[in-house]
Amino acid sequence: MPKIDLETIEPTNRTGYPPPFDRPVQGRWYRRLAPAAGLTAFGVSRVVLEPGAWSSQRHWHAGEDEFLVLLSGEGVLVDDDGEHVLRPGDCAAFPMNERNGHHLQNRGDEDCVFVVVGAGTDKGGDYPDIDMAFTPQGTYVHKDGRPYDARRPA
Amino acid sequence: MPKIDLETIEPTNRTGYPPPFDRPVQGRWYRRLAPAAGLTAFGVSRVVLEPGAWSSQRHWHAGEDEFLVLLSGEGVLVDDDGEHVLRPGDCAAFPMNERNGHHLQNRGDEDCVFVVVGAGTDKGGDYPDIDMAFTPQGTYVHKDGRPYDARRPA
Repeated sequence: MPKIDLETIEPTNRTGYPPPFDRPVQGRWYRRLAPAAGLTAFGVSRVVLEPGAWSSQRHWHAGEDEFLVLLSGEGVLVDDDGEHVLRPGDCAAFPMNERNGHHLQNRGDEDCVFVVVGAGTDKGGDYPDIDMAFTPQGTYVHKDGRPYDARRPA
Repeated sequence: MPKIDLETIEPTNRTGYPPPFDRPVQGRWYRRLAPAAGLTAFGVSRVVLEPGAWSSQRHWHAGEDEFLVLLSGEGVLVDDDGEHVLRPGDCAAFPMNERNGHHLQNRGDEDCVFVVVGAGTDKGGDYPDIDMAFTPQGTYVHKDGRPYDARRPA
């Protein structure tokens, strides 16, 4: 059945971020919709940010496009250009290898819900605000290349 | 700027469907977001269905995954399993080569707005309700292979 029954997909707040970078995403609950629905050409998740939560550390992908549409609540998109409030129906796009670190912060007092799509080739990417980058091998490393003892969720 | 300014993207109701199949999509207005935002790994459009409009003829893609999330109004998803009402926040997914023809009908009296994502390899596909199929070459053909004098929009 093409209509997705969200209730059948377990939400998770799992992260591979090593401490203390995992703290701001503890209130990020996501359902991976693509595997549940049989999609293979792109990834798509429905994400709920509790008040105070971030969508991720501010990051960019070397080989993957990202797109999001906000469904309810309000999110503050933070990137190199500053802060931009996203409201229901607002869309944002992050082309691969555009080195403009971005994330969403829920600074409101209700849940912020969005759908995010990603596709391309995993070539890793960077977190401009912290001493961390991510690799195509699913690991996190310091800026000097030394690995963290942590792995990205599969 | 990652936030997409919808006002800068011209909506169109263009279709390549030959008559009379073009009639139900006259009230389908879409903005192609991916090229405007610099995305290349998938296509994404924001679509407004006026009351009475269809998203397309009922169809399936041989080589492309599709996903949609409804933003406002109400749409009736019609597929081989019957009819399913989609409301704001509802999602639907159509894996490539699943031969379950689908489309959305706006039977309400307000606009139905959704975002749709597609990616994969264009291998054409079929319209199970009518004497038409679509080809990877961007043409429409009768079930017996004879071409229509019409082309899919680029």
